[in-house]
Amino acid sequence: MAEFDALRIDRDGKRNIKDIVTEEAPLTIYLGGKELLTLLCSPDSLKELSIGFLYSSGIIKSMADIKDIAIDDKNWVSHVELSGSDDSSELIFKRLFTSGCGRGTLFYNALDLAHKKIIKSDITVLSDRITALMNTFQDKSVLFKETGGVHSAALSDGERILAFKEDIGRHNAVDKIIGDAVMKGLDMINMIVLTSGRISSEIVHKVAKMRSPVLISRSAPTDQAVRAAREIQLTLIGFARGSRMNVYTGEERIV
Amino acid sequence: MAEFDALRIDRDGKRNIKDIVTEEAPLTIYLGGKELLTLLCSPDSLKELSIGFLYSSGIIKSMADIKDIAIDDKNWVSHVELSGSDDSSELIFKRLFTSGCGRGTLFYNALDLAHKKIIKSDITVLSDRITALMNTFQDKSVLFKETGGVHSAALSDGERILAFKEDIGRHNAVDKIIGDAVMKGLDMINMIVLTSGRISSEIVHKVAKMRSPVLISRSAPTDQAVRAAREIQLTLIGFARGSRMNVYTGEERIV
Repeated sequence: MAEFDALRIDRDGKRNIKDIVTEEAPLTIYLGGKELLTLLCSPDSLKELSIGFLYSSGIIKSMADIKDIAIDDKNWVSHVELSGSDDSSELIFKRLFTSGCGRGTLFYNALDLAHKKIIKSDITVLSDRITALMNTFQDKSVLFKETGGVHSAALSDGERILAFKEDIGRHNAVDKIIGDAVMKGLDMINMIVLTSGRISSEIVHKVAKMRSPVLISRSAPTDQAVRAAREIQLTLIGFARGSRMNVYTGEERIV
Repeated sequence: MAEFDALRIDRDGKRNIKDIVTEEAPLTIYLGGKELLTLLCSPDSLKELSIGFLYSSGIIKSMADIKDIAIDDKNWVSHVELSGSDDSSELIFKRLFTSGCGRGTLFYNALDLAHKKIIKSDITVLSDRITALMNTFQDKSVLFKETGGVHSAALSDGERILAFKEDIGRHNAVDKIIGDAVMKGLDMINMIVLTSGRISSEIVHKVAKMRSPVLISRSAPTDQAVRAAREIQLTLIGFARGSRMNVYTGEERIV
């Protein structure tokens, strides 16, 4: 968090205030010594973010695929060495950059392939439990309350919140909890993902990669997110606020 | 907008509802026949989005740099041919993709260069006028009210709102109004940019490219956004809600 002088204007006139503003940092991920990409993010949990991003982009499948990871949090750089042959990074660069790349969608085609695999999980959740989890989730959203500037994401086993991360980017917040789960080697098949941000198809694809059966947001989904979730039988809940929620698909898991 | 069946759960129990959900589309931009990138966006104003993106990324400086642009809004494809020599697109690809690329930050380095040039504009705005403009801006945000899923951006001459665009992505909403201004050949030096979304450094860089002197948001800025705005003397206002606002820098333009 950074403090800035600002001029507050309101009905009472003008006055100088100190305002707390959320921090933003460019994290550059290097793969085998070569620059992969730069993520604009909140400068915490950079290891989780790096690993979560590599996982949700299909570059790694588990921690076993990482030979070494070093985070330089002064210069916002993440150096990743993959296990396997020396040219494995080279192959990844070729695969990614020949299929087009871009903000929000670097791995759009790659992710697209993920959403055909149906999520099989017999987990059920009480709607009252969802309300309670979302209330806890809201209470934890400290950065947002102080600065109004970040998204949150969390992982839950249906009872407790097991991981909680914040970021200025809604994709990054989800990648941070994915990275946390990958680092701990958690089996995601009975896990719930909570998020404060809108659910676009990319968020569904990330959660699909993790094989989590339930995705819950305080905000709205897009049509492509609902379609993708229906296709893979992911339970998708939007507008989860107070005791209210909209279940867009997979309602058999909500009891 | 798309309508979906959903299950509403609230204090009164469960019931089936029809819910309006915002649409999301992958717009792939081709430059000289070669795939540049895919933007996940709301499927309207695709020409404005393409042009705005190319402009704010530093690929074009005006409409004169575009020989031809064809939008296929059934398949969400934008084909752009640049003026100049045949290899101008090829040079752009080389320049962009050798400096790393990624979501949110494809042109991070390129944009970074923009923010050293000081914005010289003697425009002044009454704070009451800002309140009125933001109220009009809010009233126009139709998609958000119906679906809770989009960001808005607008262009104003300080009196009226001249352009208004919505998108599921806050970067895209700003790029759409930039594209609109570029297509109309508007001189931006006395224009105000309004946005519903958070102001990260990328948004400041986009507005800096346009040379607009005033950027106003309903939401929070990041520290890097405030720093970048101070460096180029861009007036940056956050949390503009009702008659309240925080002026982070450039307060000499607010009277």
